[in-house]
Amino acid sequence: MDIAIVLYERFTALDAIGPYEVLSRLPGVSLAFLAAERGPITTDNGMLTVVAERSLAEVGGADIVLVPGGPGEVATRAGDGVLEWLRTANETSEWTTSVCTGSLVLAAAGLLEGRRATTHWLAFDELARLGAEPVHERVVFDGKLVTGAGVSAGIDMALSLAARVASPEVSQAIQLSIEYDPEPPFEAGSPAKAPQVVVETLRARSRFT
Amino acid sequence: MDIAIVLYERFTALDAIGPYEVLSRLPGVSLAFLAAERGPITTDNGMLTVVAERSLAEVGGADIVLVPGGPGEVATRAGDGVLEWLRTANETSEWTTSVCTGSLVLAAAGLLEGRRATTHWLAFDELARLGAEPVHERVVFDGKLVTGAGVSAGIDMALSLAARVASPEVSQAIQLSIEYDPEPPFEAGSPAKAPQVVVETLRARSRFT
Repeated sequence: MDIAIVLYERFTALDAIGPYEVLSRLPGVSLAFLAAERGPITTDNGMLTVVAERSLAEVGGADIVLVPGGPGEVATRAGDGVLEWLRTANETSEWTTSVCTGSLVLAAAGLLEGRRATTHWLAFDELARLGAEPVHERVVFDGKLVTGAGVSAGIDMALSLAARVASPEVSQAIQLSIEYDPEPPFEAGSPAKAPQVVVETLRARSRFT
Repeated sequence: MDIAIVLYERFTALDAIGPYEVLSRLPGVSLAFLAAERGPITTDNGMLTVVAERSLAEVGGADIVLVPGGPGEVATRAGDGVLEWLRTANETSEWTTSVCTGSLVLAAAGLLEGRRATTHWLAFDELARLGAEPVHERVVFDGKLVTGAGVSAGIDMALSLAARVASPEVSQAIQLSIEYDPEPPFEAGSPAKAPQVVVETLRARSRFT
């Protein structure tokens, strides 16, 4: 099974690396990081560079396609290259997936039209505007389109996907191998749980408001 | 505040990127990935390359030092360069930290002698052998030495650290910004919770047994 993770400048690292850490542990997979051009790609904060080993043009598609989110999704949506590649790749993929605002890219490519999907909690209106039906769940399956909520939700999305692609036992073995037994020090991971002042601070800073 | 994440060949990506995603969001930080030599570093499975922007020799230390785990920790422990750098950096750091088997590297450098610490659940005996006092907790603070359990525990460790370095409110804002409201599809993230057959499968494959 082939997995392709599509990078672009100013993506959010954990959106991609969370699912990578899970899906790369599936038996017999090959996983590649792609981008419009081969070479170094820098994350949203400029503090990390990862290497896209292959260009989109070199790869026709994959069994699992994953698009991370991040502020660079805006420029990605505005261009043609990635959107066209995703439309073509989606014709033959078994699963087309995203994490966080990666779903906005899938939506801009026309792949979420009328479909249930999720995104970062600050981006729900934008996802609706792009034709999807936003759902407040951490992981949303609609046919072969699978979307995860903000950033860290990619880990949960990938474990759910691993259970379907392989088996629940394989997914559990991956979960145990990465010791994913979360103990967040606070109950602040969703706008419903976080203190209101924290929610409002992030809303005020958001590029979506 | 300066943060240094020390990479080496065959590190585990999420060990480093989980804490990076949290700590890079602290107000006013600068964060750098270091390695023995500048340049590309490949992860444990050979599927991802990240760039170490600076060599250890170029950087004297940092306020927060973090060492990820991964199978490459064995070669790292066997060499002198990283261990010596860590001993020197620990003299001036505010926090010296690790994720997963990164604690074995700290222990090999002599920094966990008689200290409470944690590691990946499969590596407890090795951590004890190296002079630390292994504790079955997800995040362990012993003075300025902070250790996280396996792979994904780096996210919890970093959020706990963010609360101390900045404030609980800042940590909560980071948690909400990465939407860290985990919903693992299974209860299999620790050996106490996972099905016994899954635990035994991983034990049989482990490089520590």
